[in-house]
Amino acid sequence: MPSGTPQPRFVLVRPQMGENIGAAARAMLNFGLDQMHLVAPRDGWPNPSAVAMASGAGRVLDDAQVSETVVGAVEDCSFVFATTARQRGLTKPIYTPERAMEVARERIAKGEKVGVLFGPERAGLENDDIAVANAIISVPVNPEFASLNLAQCVLLTAYEWRRQTVDTVAETVELAGHDWATAIEMEKLAEHYEQRLDEAGFFYPHTKSDGMKVTLRNLWSRLPLTRADVQMLHGVMRQMVRWKERGD
Amino acid sequence: MPSGTPQPRFVLVRPQMGENIGAAARAMLNFGLDQMHLVAPRDGWPNPSAVAMASGAGRVLDDAQVSETVVGAVEDCSFVFATTARQRGLTKPIYTPERAMEVARERIAKGEKVGVLFGPERAGLENDDIAVANAIISVPVNPEFASLNLAQCVLLTAYEWRRQTVDTVAETVELAGHDWATAIEMEKLAEHYEQRLDEAGFFYPHTKSDGMKVTLRNLWSRLPLTRADVQMLHGVMRQMVRWKERGD
Repeated sequence: MPSGTPQPRFVLVRPQMGENIGAAARAMLNFGLDQMHLVAPRDGWPNPSAVAMASGAGRVLDDAQVSETVVGAVEDCSFVFATTARQRGLTKPIYTPERAMEVARERIAKGEKVGVLFGPERAGLENDDIAVANAIISVPVNPEFASLNLAQCVLLTAYEWRRQTVDTVAETVELAGHDWATAIEMEKLAEHYEQRLDEAGFFYPHTKSDGMKVTLRNLWSRLPLTRADVQMLHGVMRQMVRWKERGD
Repeated sequence: MPSGTPQPRFVLVRPQMGENIGAAARAMLNFGLDQMHLVAPRDGWPNPSAVAMASGAGRVLDDAQVSETVVGAVEDCSFVFATTARQRGLTKPIYTPERAMEVARERIAKGEKVGVLFGPERAGLENDDIAVANAIISVPVNPEFASLNLAQCVLLTAYEWRRQTVDTVAETVELAGHDWATAIEMEKLAEHYEQRLDEAGFFYPHTKSDGMKVTLRNLWSRLPLTRADVQMLHGVMRQMVRWKERGD
């Protein structure tokens, strides 16, 4: 059974190689999608080479629906996207993958069903397929070298769906295992270095020593240090002093 | 010759299969990137199976630079990202691919060089590799099924670069141009401290010394240090050593 998580239905239209169907299943599941629909797969269904390639994503294939026609695959969808690199003179709104998945999210949130059509390897979708769609998804590839394969096109679209539905923004400036040093801990670190460096004769000549001290304090205060960092930096200075005092 | 278009340098670290290197080249060129750097490719270089897979993107391979070490591949970069799925307890800022390429765009627009590290198949980047990086790129994959391959990780990152540079993006506030230390300068700072602290007996006990060294290197690489900061930190260590040697 599919996860039941509300999501767009990814429809592979007349896919040829089983390996590519399996790779598409993996690409989908990487971003939490598990509702695959196949239209007239060339080599029939089920397809052992698809299963072999899907490995951990085999359940996406187990749950895949199969139709003979594109219309049959999206008959209950209120909005259908067609992914295509080339323009074929059809008058359709063209969306970036990001904007398309934003629209999909909004519609699915209202209980609508949304389908995304992916064409067969090489040939891509035909005009008859695209005619079924409400809008086109066009990946902004390099016009001088556009060679996305089926699974890659599925991957990018699934990735944009994930971006729409998972709050990734909060992660962006987060630190792994962050336990920030407090102001007083930073102050003690600055004092420790300043005192020892003073003894070591670092702040020389005296006419410049105040400026050097300010510069060093500015450096510490500018750095995003955790408590662990501060402890290590204390340890560094303590060890240098021990070394000096050992006099070896 | 590479296009010369300002862009991040994509660094494949110890890639194994030539096919994956070729697929990565295609993924890059799809989004207009043609500056690939290889670190110690397992099967040597050039690699016929990479060329076979790259097909139309062969010129990306022809222009690829090869280094023996990660530092060698990014020594002139002022900011380095490491792509990794797993957290290894290293304290680093974590960026989404989108945010990371936004940062890359801002820095590259100021004339800085930016590198992105991609780990070998299966194993991924090691802590020593990640320690060289200023920040981590983490793709928001399904935690229950994360199986992006090398070329797919390259594809998504390249796609986000394209979105940053092709789509019209909101202007970001320009920060006063800092003279950031480069990776080679950071490496020399890390080496200076590591060597002196080793002499001073800081890395003790020996069973823990490797971990302590990685932690310290990770600290340096994480800090937003300017060249002036680096010079001051060299001066701090030099002075502590002079003090010791004076033995007063």
